[in-house]
Amino acid sequence: MRIAVDAMGGDYGPGVLVQGAVRGARQYQCEIVLVGDKASLEKELAEQELSGLALSLHHASETVEMEESPTAALRRKRDSSIRVCFELIKKGETQAMVSAGHSGAVMATAIMVLKRSEGVERPALALLLPNMAGGRTVLLDVGSNVDCKPHHLAQFAVMGSVYAQLMLKIKEPRVALLSNGEEESKGNEVTREAHSLLKGAGIRYVGYVEGRDIYTGKVDVIVCDGFVGNVVLKCSEGLVDALAAVFKEEAEKGLISRWGYGLMSRPLNRFKNKFDYNEYGGAPLLGVNGVAVISHGGASVKAIQNAIGLACQFAAEKVNDHLAQVLARNKDLISFASVKLPRVT
Amino acid sequence: MRIAVDAMGGDYGPGVLVQGAVRGARQYQCEIVLVGDKASLEKELAEQELSGLALSLHHASETVEMEESPTAALRRKRDSSIRVCFELIKKGETQAMVSAGHSGAVMATAIMVLKRSEGVERPALALLLPNMAGGRTVLLDVGSNVDCKPHHLAQFAVMGSVYAQLMLKIKEPRVALLSNGEEESKGNEVTREAHSLLKGAGIRYVGYVEGRDIYTGKVDVIVCDGFVGNVVLKCSEGLVDALAAVFKEEAEKGLISRWGYGLMSRPLNRFKNKFDYNEYGGAPLLGVNGVAVISHGGASVKAIQNAIGLACQFAAEKVNDHLAQVLARNKDLISFASVKLPRVT
Repeated sequence: MRIAVDAMGGDYGPGVLVQGAVRGARQYQCEIVLVGDKASLEKELAEQELSGLALSLHHASETVEMEESPTAALRRKRDSSIRVCFELIKKGETQAMVSAGHSGAVMATAIMVLKRSEGVERPALALLLPNMAGGRTVLLDVGSNVDCKPHHLAQFAVMGSVYAQLMLKIKEPRVALLSNGEEESKGNEVTREAHSLLKGAGIRYVGYVEGRDIYTGKVDVIVCDGFVGNVVLKCSEGLVDALAAVFKEEAEKGLISRWGYGLMSRPLNRFKNKFDYNEYGGAPLLGVNGVAVISHGGASVKAIQNAIGLACQFAAEKVNDHLAQVLARNKDLISFASVKLPRVT
Repeated sequence: MRIAVDAMGGDYGPGVLVQGAVRGARQYQCEIVLVGDKASLEKELAEQELSGLALSLHHASETVEMEESPTAALRRKRDSSIRVCFELIKKGETQAMVSAGHSGAVMATAIMVLKRSEGVERPALALLLPNMAGGRTVLLDVGSNVDCKPHHLAQFAVMGSVYAQLMLKIKEPRVALLSNGEEESKGNEVTREAHSLLKGAGIRYVGYVEGRDIYTGKVDVIVCDGFVGNVVLKCSEGLVDALAAVFKEEAEKGLISRWGYGLMSRPLNRFKNKFDYNEYGGAPLLGVNGVAVISHGGASVKAIQNAIGLACQFAAEKVNDHLAQVLARNKDLISFASVKLPRVT
């Protein structure tokens, strides 16, 4: 398995990305192609222990900056590290790519270079979140699909179901729409219509869930638009940070609390890890002809390492082939009558 | 100050509501009119210590059930505890009401009996959330306005600004739209148009904030539609519950952790309280001619007590009069050019 890593994206520069790639190559026994400014990357690599690893460099002369418009970046920067990663996939030189760069630019470039899967109007970013039942829940879209039509949500639901079958090994994933209440009378105009579409979609659609069920493990796949998905993730991150701050403040107040803090720091860290995006690493883009895992701009070494693991699994499970099969059976995904998911065997 | 308490709503029945009302009457030195089935309430009151308190009963023969449609409840149950509370306000017998009942029915009844404030198309529920800067942040709408037009969000922003001026004593509250990123290029169709409207609204509108800023205290008022507001709250509740479960699990694993748990339980509880909806009690409905505070269906004794405190403050600050002044200056809130907020003196 060969994975291209965009070694220029992300808020912390190539150091973190190269380190994450080295650890990923070691843990997942895959080949890594680091894409970016050769001189910078050689300097970073010189500091790493590389024996037994299959790492190579591929020069890309440009970098997409975080504040750039995705379309402008696509038009102007034809040799960006993001674009070169996708060209490597297209040429068959790598089987997947990982980027912590400008997520809008990664998505736009993925769609332009790899093309959408047949039957998909809007590729979606799907995140695996840990849940309290000890498993993981797929949340999608956490990408840039901020204004969705009902059939877009329905497509996300079908893609999320296939993803959960293959990545979480759940035979018949329970799929739900995120809403402001569980009753059928709840939801907004878009979710209500998507709810009707999904009843006939041939997946195990179980109706609406509330925000609290993101973390309970009551369902396996939760579908929302990218605006809501982003708010959910950022709000959760903010709350975990708030928690950490409260504990730190408490520990600084007095000896007993500090003692308690010391004793509790192990479970506290475990809790933080459980909901920390660095743990889950990144989100694959579902609905394009190739494997792209998008990591948070502020991704840590560990996040990049985990994103590489995710990319390996995604490619090995041939998620895209399964998706293509399901999508091919139904050219008009707006009417879902004929969608039947394949069983994972 | 006389407050009507809907003593029949809520998931736990009249016991919790009566207890909360008794504590509220004691803490805030206000008169309470308990509205509901007289026989049940007399039974509950018999168990309470009432010396020195001004509590009375007002019979209502019907109760709106949680699963009823708000409009059907309005039409059919003319003597419901919710409706009777609002009739008492209309007749001038009480200055405010508190309910933990069916929130959709409370809102619909408020609008029908009290009427919308002039210039308001959609009354909104505004919640005071604690933030990490040590203050509180107003989040609205957390009610039933699931499908909003841009000018609805703009109206919420103006109402939220007045509310923060009076309730949080902030001279020029920083008001923001909740979005999927801070840059102007982010947001969805509705927030982008609302963003344009708000630039000329005569309030201290500071642009977009992300989900993580709900808890940072970076701004004073955060505006979203009721769908997103509900998801944010339920997701936060779910995450706090998940945290508590992780800690409990850890404590059950071994002696040292249990010891640590004991030492840390005080700050843990303090943290839980900080984000617990029982602490903030309830949310007032902004944009109707009267004071209604809506509490969570699963509200505790403490939540009801706090909701009564909120209702007292809301009525004492004459928030509605100030809102009416601001709204009256601009009959067409879609064009915000002439909205100028009054200074709180």
